[in-house]
Parts: sequence; C-alpha cells; structure tokens
Amino acid sequence: MKKIINNPNDVVTDSLRGLALAHPDMVEVDLDQHIVYRKDPKKDRVAIISGGGSGHEPLHSGFVGTGMLDAAVCGEVFTSPVPDQIMEATNKVDAGKGVLHIVKNYTGDVMNFEMAAEMAADMENTQVASVIVADDVAVQDSLYTAGRRGVGGTVFVEKIAGAYAEEGHDLAAVAEVAQRVADNTRSFGLALTSCTVPAAGKPTFELAENEIELGIGIHGEPGRERRELQSARELAGEIVRPILADLDFTGAPVVALLGGMGATPLSELYLIWGECAALLDEAGVKVERVLVGDYVTSLEMAGCALSLLKADAELLRLWDAPVVTTGLRWGA
Amino acid sequence: MKKIINNPNDVVTDSLRGLALAHPDMVEVDLDQHIVYRKDPKKDRVAIISGGGSGHEPLHSGFVGTGMLDAAVCGEVFTSPVPDQIMEATNKVDAGKGVLHIVKNYTGDVMNFEMAAEMAADMENTQVASVIVADDVAVQDSLYTAGRRGVGGTVFVEKIAGAYAEEGHDLAAVAEVAQRVADNTRSFGLALTSCTVPAAGKPTFELAENEIELGIGIHGEPGRERRELQSARELAGEIVRPILADLDFTGAPVVALLGGMGATPLSELYLIWGECAALLDEAGVKVERVLVGDYVTSLEMAGCALSLLKADAELLRLWDAPVVTTGLRWGA
Repeated sequence: MKKIINNPNDVVTDSLRGLALAHPDMVEVDLDQHIVYRKDPKKDRVAIISGGGSGHEPLHSGFVGTGMLDAAVCGEVFTSPVPDQIMEATNKVDAGKGVLHIVKNYTGDVMNFEMAAEMAADMENTQVASVIVADDVAVQDSLYTAGRRGVGGTVFVEKIAGAYAEEGHDLAAVAEVAQRVADNTRSFGLALTSCTVPAAGKPTFELAENEIELGIGIHGEPGRERRELQSARELAGEIVRPILADLDFTGAPVVALLGGMGATPLSELYLIWGECAALLDEAGVKVERVLVGDYVTSLEMAGCALSLLKADAELLRLWDAPVVTTGLRWGA
Repeated sequence: MKKIINNPNDVVTDSLRGLALAHPDMVEVDLDQHIVYRKDPKKDRVAIISGGGSGHEPLHSGFVGTGMLDAAVCGEVFTSPVPDQIMEATNKVDAGKGVLHIVKNYTGDVMNFEMAAEMAADMENTQVASVIVADDVAVQDSLYTAGRRGVGGTVFVEKIAGAYAEEGHDLAAVAEVAQRVADNTRSFGLALTSCTVPAAGKPTFELAENEIELGIGIHGEPGRERRELQSARELAGEIVRPILADLDFTGAPVVALLGGMGATPLSELYLIWGECAALLDEAGVKVERVLVGDYVTSLEMAGCALSLLKADAELLRLWDAPVVTTGLRWGA
C-alpha cells in the first residue's frame, strides 16, 4: 500500500488536522469527534448537516461553509459516523430553527442519522428533518444499500439546500427543496481501477489490465458489469444512456457534474465531458451549468461519474448563489 | 495503458473541446491552435500569456480568466507549444499595452516563447516582456532544463501578475511584480508512482512497490534520490528541509501551495499539509495563506509538492484579489 499517511488508524484525524490548519478562516474542526464546523455559525437560520464515511473528499468536509453545510460528520474511511457524533453536531449547529440531515442512502448512514435525530430531539428538543439521496441508477440494492446508492448528486442537494437555508426559509421548506433536488438527480459511474482502504491495506477489488467496471459504487461496490476498456466516446454512451433511460431530462434546465473518482487526470474528465455533452445535446437535453473535477471521490480510484439534475428556474438560481467552502466556491 | 481517451494523438484537442463545452461563459478555445482565451478580452490593460506542455491541468488552461491569464497556449502532452501558436496568442490578446509571457524554465519552452516574442514584435509591433519561473530546488540541471525547473510556483506568478495587470499597471511594472514572485518562490516534490504519456503508452519510469522518488520533476524527470516510502511526517521533512535550506522564509508573510501530482487523494494532501505546517511553524515560518489540491499535476502520477512564496503586504493583497477561472476562483 503506497499512501502518504502516518498510521492507517489515524488517517481521518491526521487529515482533518491538516484541513483545520489550512483553512482556519473557513472551518473549525473537532479532532476528537471528527466534525468539521463552519467558522461563522448561523444565526436564526435552518442549519444543514451531512456526513458519512471518509475517503470521498472534498465530500463532505470540503463543503462546509457559507451557502452550503454547517457541519460535516466524518466516519472512518468508507464507514458511517456513529449516532453520538451526528447528535453532537446536530445539537451544536441548531440555531433554534431546526436542522436538516442530508444522508446518502447507505444502510449504516441512514440508521445512524435516524438514531441521532431521535436522540437530538429527546435531549435538546432539536427539530430535525432528513433527506435521503439515492441518485445512482446503476443498481437497485447493493453491498451496503437497500435501494439505490447515494453518490455524486449529493453535491447538488448540499449546494442548493445550503443556498436556500441561507435565505432564511423554515425547516419544512428547506427540506422540501432538498427533496426536490434529490428526486430529480440521477448518476452513473465507472471505474478503471480499484482503491485501497488504508486499514485494509490491499485493493478492494481487482480489475484486469484492460477491464473496467460499469456502474461502480463509490466504495468499490460492484456495478452492472465488467467490460473491456472502450474509447471515451463509447464510455460516454455507457454512462449517459442509463441516466436518460431512468428520467426524462428534456424540457428543463439541467445541471451536470462530471466527477472524477480521485486518480483520473482533469484532462480526461474534460475529454469525456466533451463526449457526454455531444450525446446530451443529441438527446435534446439542455445543460445550463457544468462542473468538472473531483467532488465525490473514492480515494485513489481511477474513473468518473456523471450526475444530472433536472432543475427549474428556482433551483438554478440557488445553484448560482454564492458559496464559500474549501471544495466549491463562487460568487463571493 | 488505461485512460479515458479516444485516440492518443487527439487527447489535447478532445480535452480542450470538453473544456470549451463546460465553460462557454469563461473561455473561448481555438481547437486548431490549442489556445484557450478568456471570454471577455481585456481592454487597455497589459495581457498575460502562459503555456507549455499539456498534462499539468488545471495549469495552464484552467487559469485563464478574470484576474489571471488572458490566454494559455497548450502544447502536446509534456511538449512545448510551437512559436507560431505562441505568437498568434500574443498578437491576439494584445490590447495595445503589451503582453507578459510567463514561462516555466524548460529549454523548449524558453526557446519557443522567445522566438514567438521576436516574431510578434516584428510582425505586429507587439511589446513583450518575459518572466522565467525556476522554483524547483530539487536539481540544478535536468532532463529538459538548463538551471532549475519551473513547477508549482507558477501558480503564484500567474495569479499575482494577473491581479496586478487587472489594476492597469504598465508592462514593466507587471513584469517586475511577476519577477519578484518568481524570485521568492521555492518548490520541492516527490512521487509515489510514475505517469503514462498517452503517445508513449507505457509508464515514464518505474518505482518499486515500496519506493518513492524525492525531488521528482513534473514530467517524471529524475529527482535527487530514490528512497523507501516513509511516514507522512518523515516525507514532510524531506520536502520542507530543502526549501528552507535554499531561502530564508522567516520575517515575511508566506503563501503555501501543497499540490497533488494528480492521483493522490485530497485527504492525503491535507494530511501531509498538517505535517508540513507543523515543521514550518517550528522553523518560525509564518504561513498566511494556504492552497491544498491539484493545481500543477503530472497526469495520473501519485505524489505531492510543496511551493512556498515569501510574500510582502502587496503580494498578499494581490494574491487575495478576485480571480475567476475554472481552476482557481475566489472573491467574485
């Protein structure tokens, strides 16, 4: 295992320490609880929390800040945070207007966020609403999931809910907008290589020299099938087709995220975005905003994923609203 | 070779097409000449061009936009652009106030930018000034270099010169600021793995399973020595020490860039930044601004590099000035 780490057991703590030292103007990090808070706590506004297993950075720790998350609760690599952590973050960010939990659809995450919500309500009377993100069209059930997995589309939910909360709407309204984004997002990914979880010390799975996995999960869970590596043009078809087969993306402004899995050069991400864009155009899909880069990663996995959000004028306005986080930043 | 590409000969064109399709609001791309222009050309201001071999994205194409570059001239992967390309970009961006060339110190780049400057002066009377970036303290001469190589510190030069040009200063003054940044920047990198140039089809070099290269060049050129992989804490010492040995960074505000080589997870970059920050603090170096992520990459190489700029109040102000590019964005 070739990694820039100290001890495999300390990777989350050590990495969060570096995050805290790099961005003291933006975040405050609880190194014991593995929680990243935004520096200037919200007043009189709905707060938003997300979290999950580490190893997908910048998701979620890199999305803490003005216009996005109030806190990110970080589990061990590819492991859900525990209810106590989530409860602590929930109670701490609550400014009296309630807290929205944005949860990727993995059994452990869903269960632990739910328990934390109940504990926060019992202990401090904190009002919590939850939105589950389940945007991956690749498989129905999976290794850690009942139903669809939550993947790249989480960025859309966190960004747009964050912008809406910043405007001062109440918890029910913020949850409704977040749910609308989740309901209208679809994703599909592929992997060229595996990744290695530090504590495991060896690759999660093996792919032959010329083999790829279509429909890969962000923890290396199996997708739909293994194939020979094809051209970027053909691969674009493999990721665009299942998304468009699942939801009609015509007749609305669309936001696209072409995300890298961690080890894919930006030049290749732009290259396959060019191929995806041509296919989407042919299909009559009007892409109005595009993000290309590493946003929801799987350690050093090589590969990419496409996420599409079928937006509307309001969601587009919220997407464009200022955001100041370490991982996503514009308009301020 | 496992890459998301069509034909190895078309990777630069195909990738730039995707860039153009993703960001039509920010850039205009000449797909024949492989030049990326900012969308809103400057008026009555000094223009700034950089460029070099492709494969280091977001450098340089991702740094075109308000507050940074007016154009990026893209060569084939790890290959200098030719004088004709550079001349065309130079003449096109000139708004009558002259053009600054920011050139990384590689023999081909230096020669071709110099020829282009002469051609632009002869043909259209375009005034050109040049600044050579040679920030890599690892080796004196190298595979493609007389003197030191230009690496991560190029981001400092492009950002700060871009901000200064935006303020309306004349060519000599913009060149002076760029030179001041270049003179006060030092970098050092290390690689855990090689990268594969698409046209070559096989890794540029080989490292054993537990081996790293200290002082790696951004094209995979040999560094100072090969070592066994060490802990992040020890690796931080290996990259901080040669930088501090080369220039006294105390007594001034410092800007730091902890950059990934392409395939290193963001979590590992933050992790080693934490170790570097501790060492810099011990050495009395006051780091005032930090950037962690992939900014000057080497395709899918795993590894990282540290760049430090010994700044002053003016350079810090220019670093903080608004920048709107696809690769670096804040304040607007």
